[in-house]
Amino acid sequence: MENRLYNPDEIQKKSFSIIKDELEKRGFLPDGHITSLQLDVIIRCIHTTADFDYADNLVFSDGALDEIERLIKAGATIVTDTNMALAGISAKSAESFGCELKCFMAEPDVGIEAKERGITRASVSMEKASALKGDVIYAVGNAPTALMTLRDLHDRGYRPAFVIGVPVGFVNVVEAKEMIINSDIPHIVARGNKGGSTVAAAIVNAVFAWIRGK
Amino acid sequence: MENRLYNPDEIQKKSFSIIKDELEKRGFLPDGHITSLQLDVIIRCIHTTADFDYADNLVFSDGALDEIERLIKAGATIVTDTNMALAGISAKSAESFGCELKCFMAEPDVGIEAKERGITRASVSMEKASALKGDVIYAVGNAPTALMTLRDLHDRGYRPAFVIGVPVGFVNVVEAKEMIINSDIPHIVARGNKGGSTVAAAIVNAVFAWIRGK
Repeated sequence: MENRLYNPDEIQKKSFSIIKDELEKRGFLPDGHITSLQLDVIIRCIHTTADFDYADNLVFSDGALDEIERLIKAGATIVTDTNMALAGISAKSAESFGCELKCFMAEPDVGIEAKERGITRASVSMEKASALKGDVIYAVGNAPTALMTLRDLHDRGYRPAFVIGVPVGFVNVVEAKEMIINSDIPHIVARGNKGGSTVAAAIVNAVFAWIRGK
Repeated sequence: MENRLYNPDEIQKKSFSIIKDELEKRGFLPDGHITSLQLDVIIRCIHTTADFDYADNLVFSDGALDEIERLIKAGATIVTDTNMALAGISAKSAESFGCELKCFMAEPDVGIEAKERGITRASVSMEKASALKGDVIYAVGNAPTALMTLRDLHDRGYRPAFVIGVPVGFVNVVEAKEMIINSDIPHIVARGNKGGSTVAAAIVNAVFAWIRGK
């Protein structure tokens, strides 16, 4: 086992460097338009999926990265649409920035209300989160209905501080993401069918790591 | 919003059917060699990633699906290498089969030992899990070192009951998966770089759903 990397920091460093090399080989870098944080977000999404489609499908609204950096530094609440995404976000980093992490999906009242209204728990969770005080960053890696509900709430006057819109799937997903892209909500969205809880968490963790490394 | 599917069961049903159609279009189905559970596993891996590579990269050892069905029905312990995978596995289903779900990654003594020995927490976690009584199904969606450690333990006489080997990444990942494929450990492995905690959880959930639906 002598030659194998067993040190987690070394493994991550080597992984990021392999991804960067592969991006360069594919002519992705350097193009001069991309910021370091944007590159970090892309690399971490590829790192968590081994899928280079994330070099092309991530859409950043104007000033998105400055805005999410500002929100995290200001201790915004981060709400996810799965407990998986919640588990994947660095709790230690969140705490160090004073960001609370929340997911309402498994709360019994959310399940009951969703069943009664015949809608998804994700939709109910987003409504619930929209009643929180202070800025909320939504990290949506699973349910397109979460994005639809956020867009509806926005159209009725609510201002989501930031939406990470990376649900995965084949029903409503592409359309729901376009509803966020075609809004003035600050966002990072993985256009198309791809995404997931691991991708949502990776984006948040990329911003954490970027701020810490500054 | 009238036309949109908001009912989660309907969304899932429609998603699975879209994936099945796409697989057929790609000439994947029907080939006569594939069992229903194998198809369910493949569909759920695609469902959780929107990545059709899982139609080709999943490797099932001989009799793997009968074996994992048997183990779950017998209430085997399921150990993951991330708390994300743990969060993604249906706790309700696990409980109904009497399967305990465990992840040692965040335990303080695991972190301390890993640091002292200069190895990954995943390796220490696998060693710890190998001391559990009864059969253990390992659901590894993140750390190739978990698979290497399981293979080492196996070569020294320990018998992992089953390994779901779907870590993702660029360092040691391909090699670690081959170490499981080239062993007599019953396994489902995603050959190559791809995988993830969501994929590990999807495979377990596919087997749960299959048994429940029988």
